[in-house]
Amino acid sequence: MANGGPEIEQLILLLARLPGLGPRSARRAVLQLIKKKEQLMIPLSAALDRAVQAVTVCEVCGNVDTRSPCHICADPRRDSGLLIVVEDVADLWALERAGVGAVKYHVLGGVLSPLDGVGPDDLSIDALLRRAPEFSEIVLAVNATVEGQTTAHYITDRLAPSGVKITRLAHGVPVGGELDYLDEGTLSQALKARTAI
Amino acid sequence: MANGGPEIEQLILLLARLPGLGPRSARRAVLQLIKKKEQLMIPLSAALDRAVQAVTVCEVCGNVDTRSPCHICADPRRDSGLLIVVEDVADLWALERAGVGAVKYHVLGGVLSPLDGVGPDDLSIDALLRRAPEFSEIVLAVNATVEGQTTAHYITDRLAPSGVKITRLAHGVPVGGELDYLDEGTLSQALKARTAI
Repeated sequence: MANGGPEIEQLILLLARLPGLGPRSARRAVLQLIKKKEQLMIPLSAALDRAVQAVTVCEVCGNVDTRSPCHICADPRRDSGLLIVVEDVADLWALERAGVGAVKYHVLGGVLSPLDGVGPDDLSIDALLRRAPEFSEIVLAVNATVEGQTTAHYITDRLAPSGVKITRLAHGVPVGGELDYLDEGTLSQALKARTAI
Repeated sequence: MANGGPEIEQLILLLARLPGLGPRSARRAVLQLIKKKEQLMIPLSAALDRAVQAVTVCEVCGNVDTRSPCHICADPRRDSGLLIVVEDVADLWALERAGVGAVKYHVLGGVLSPLDGVGPDDLSIDALLRRAPEFSEIVLAVNATVEGQTTAHYITDRLAPSGVKITRLAHGVPVGGELDYLDEGTLSQALKARTAI
């Protein structure tokens, strides 16, 4: 009980389980919390309490929000007919930050990974098939990893009978990226998909 | 409100203010919390509530604990007569983890830094002077920075009338360290303070 009391120990142990924090940074975080009790610790405690009460998973798309259907699914202005399929809520947030427009999303909750025991029934693919007829185009915005591409192929096969248009994100040079640092696969794809200026 | 609701936004903003976390890692942390609601989010919320209630600063030494005097100051077995003066609670915790023995501590709460407007009255130096007669030796375990050393000199001057023995931590080669990577100051101090094998 080196660090002053079981309450503090417990807080360090729990914070250390957050991604990006280890035991050492969790201790620093707890000291910061204690030093800034009024400005940081009490508001954080209250915010966590509220989040525990409020946060729920959207039953339509799998987004996390304080209501279900979430504010995206419930938004009548998002009527472009475009459905973007993502692996994870983090990807949905990233696309929203990028301001991709009046689209809707579907969160798979992972990718197919036989080695990890993740099969089609572990992802929300059936729900996607049920939603598909509502949309004119479905973008499979899964990660460009082997598992992501396998999942995209599988979903494409399952969606084929619905007749909906299926697309994927473009491969190419990241904005601000330098050619010298790019891998051959990306460069070759970027050349193949070159566009007129 | 891209990230689903003001409760979630607020939680991300507060977590991003912890040391070691930025906006991006705070978002990842919040998603992790939401995914592991039962195992992580609810326990963390409860632990924070308990810590807010329980944590206090020891009125004797400045340590943080759930009681004052803290468990170190109140421990009758810590009777070696050795008082270790540290800048910060984090340093106290580091020394306790190192298992330095039955010592007591005094947390200064910082170092003298005229440029940042930190003078002797901003540190708990008067309290240290009052405690000094209880101990046979005071170790100034401040950081080996310019401010730390200035603070050590100042405290040495103030403690001189009390007649108590004042020491500092040894400089030298860190255990496991390679000479090649050490700065000249450390190497020269390590040579001066060489010991018989």
